[in-house]
Amino acid sequence: MTDRIEKIPQELNLQGLDALLISSLPNIRYLTCYEARDAYLLVSAKKNVFITDFRYLYEARKNLKGIQVQLINGSLFKTIARTAKELKIKRLGFESKNLVYAEQQKIREELDEKIGFLPTFDLIEGLRKIKSPQELKKIKTATRIATSAMQFAKRLLKPGLSEIDVVFEIERFIRLEHGCKPSFDIIVASGPNSSFPHHISSERKLLKNEPVLIDLGVDFQGYKSDLTRVFFLGKIPAYAREIYEIVLAAQKSAISEIQAGNPIGSIDNKARQIIAQKGYAKNFGHALGHGIGLEVHEEPHIYGKSSEELTENMVFTIEPAIYLPGKFGIRIEDMVWVKQKGSEVLSGNLDKRI
Amino acid sequence: MTDRIEKIPQELNLQGLDALLISSLPNIRYLTCYEARDAYLLVSAKKNVFITDFRYLYEARKNLKGIQVQLINGSLFKTIARTAKELKIKRLGFESKNLVYAEQQKIREELDEKIGFLPTFDLIEGLRKIKSPQELKKIKTATRIATSAMQFAKRLLKPGLSEIDVVFEIERFIRLEHGCKPSFDIIVASGPNSSFPHHISSERKLLKNEPVLIDLGVDFQGYKSDLTRVFFLGKIPAYAREIYEIVLAAQKSAISEIQAGNPIGSIDNKARQIIAQKGYAKNFGHALGHGIGLEVHEEPHIYGKSSEELTENMVFTIEPAIYLPGKFGIRIEDMVWVKQKGSEVLSGNLDKRI
Repeated sequence: MTDRIEKIPQELNLQGLDALLISSLPNIRYLTCYEARDAYLLVSAKKNVFITDFRYLYEARKNLKGIQVQLINGSLFKTIARTAKELKIKRLGFESKNLVYAEQQKIREELDEKIGFLPTFDLIEGLRKIKSPQELKKIKTATRIATSAMQFAKRLLKPGLSEIDVVFEIERFIRLEHGCKPSFDIIVASGPNSSFPHHISSERKLLKNEPVLIDLGVDFQGYKSDLTRVFFLGKIPAYAREIYEIVLAAQKSAISEIQAGNPIGSIDNKARQIIAQKGYAKNFGHALGHGIGLEVHEEPHIYGKSSEELTENMVFTIEPAIYLPGKFGIRIEDMVWVKQKGSEVLSGNLDKRI
Repeated sequence: MTDRIEKIPQELNLQGLDALLISSLPNIRYLTCYEARDAYLLVSAKKNVFITDFRYLYEARKNLKGIQVQLINGSLFKTIARTAKELKIKRLGFESKNLVYAEQQKIREELDEKIGFLPTFDLIEGLRKIKSPQELKKIKTATRIATSAMQFAKRLLKPGLSEIDVVFEIERFIRLEHGCKPSFDIIVASGPNSSFPHHISSERKLLKNEPVLIDLGVDFQGYKSDLTRVFFLGKIPAYAREIYEIVLAAQKSAISEIQAGNPIGSIDNKARQIIAQKGYAKNFGHALGHGIGLEVHEEPHIYGKSSEELTENMVFTIEPAIYLPGKFGIRIEDMVWVKQKGSEVLSGNLDKRI
């Protein structure tokens, strides 16, 4: 059992709950350090129960210490209801963002009428925002490998290769040289394809004097990284260089504002202002960044309307961009660790000069 | 626009609905043939609206013909509500298994009070159960590549390699030689690890005279395959051979029962009976198989309590197994296509002799 799970009942108590049904697999992994699949975790002051099916029973029992592993009996919904009854739970919370409507409905139907089944919001996600030293260590390793992969990709690029060729080579590098895996489908977007923020890598062949946008990340022991760079094959057109410099300035300016206590909204606004001043407000239509850890996208989201403040040991991406539909796009993405004073760019040694 | 989407309003009409909000990405892909990410599709007799954010806007407009692409404005929930109002929808269905509780709640709050927001069950999934000739062609290709990958893996195996080494080599084979990707994390489970039905491939090194269970699949243009074989490195212990023969007999018997019109439950029972007769009922704790197509696990599920009948052009796996915890496990998995008379094992040319 981990320290993390032991702290949950106190959190629940503050919300007037005596148990929580956790249906998010990353949340279960966070609390148990076990990579669960097809499982539910019921956390309460009395007992923690991990509910799974035959396929994972023995593996779960082998890996989970201090947590009861309960085989699904009859149906998942009946098993959850039976467990709640046995533990004399009166107010059971569920993760409203991580439970589909139909399952919520079926569990509700199976539960004793006297048991309240109540939506909660970002309870575990809120804890996951602040990284522990062990988590930071894994994120740093994931970032270091992604940085190497990006340097490898840069050396590899040449006219005539297809986007998908480059994807395969990067994957192979991550898997065979580093023994881990990509944290999402690697994006290689060449020429006009780079103007689609989340392009699906295609058979298109790289051409001379074109930008190639590469967005890649690595999963190291469950912890993710996420980096983007744009490279040019040959001559950099003056207009592209101009756009690149605007995006770089926006990123630099946003990063300079990062420090515990500063409002998240102002970080996004800072970058957006620089892009808007040059007339490209409409060409930067997504948020500035996202938290990263056990999931590639997690809390905190870095966007202008956020009312949250930065806290020490948050880790997130900063990825301003300008997309010129049908022409090209520039995005520069790094991972930043918030400190008491200032911040550290975890991918800081990855060159941004073009 | 595809024929598939044109048929939906009629289906909705039968259920007393005038529109459906589709939140499952495979369902959206099925209806539009476009690999959407972070999107919602509102289908109605008047108009079909694809709702997405800035990142996918231009790509979606380029790929979707005859479907209005709507940028999220304000919030996703407000945009859905505004669209429903504009189309004068009175009864809007949602996919109860594919929409999380919190989103369902927020959409409900934004919708006009006069609009009913009603749960539906497996509406598109029901259509996806029956494969078209074009879908079958893609599934066959995905199966053919998986078959080659399994044959490649068999030649590769030798004592001293780690499970994860084998995984990487199989992945490379699928990606570089065939230009597609695995449909799930490949399982290589050696010795006692094979007794965990969904083992996570590890650093464990293969030993002589041990079984190695390999479960792999391929994604070809969105369509998946899924196959399992067990190989032995060296001598096959007599006890393992005995277990292997039972599992093989169970599979053979189940497959012989497959034909349009037969009840699904009886297929599962047939295999389970053979395993139970030999005293291993408790060692086969999962369902016999699952439908496969745009998702690795989809309808129809092949289990004993199913009240459904087989229909022509269903495609699913048949994967009986015996797991002896801490010792070893045997699973044999093939993909079967239901025909008017009998069936065709799509992975039929993949050897099962040990």
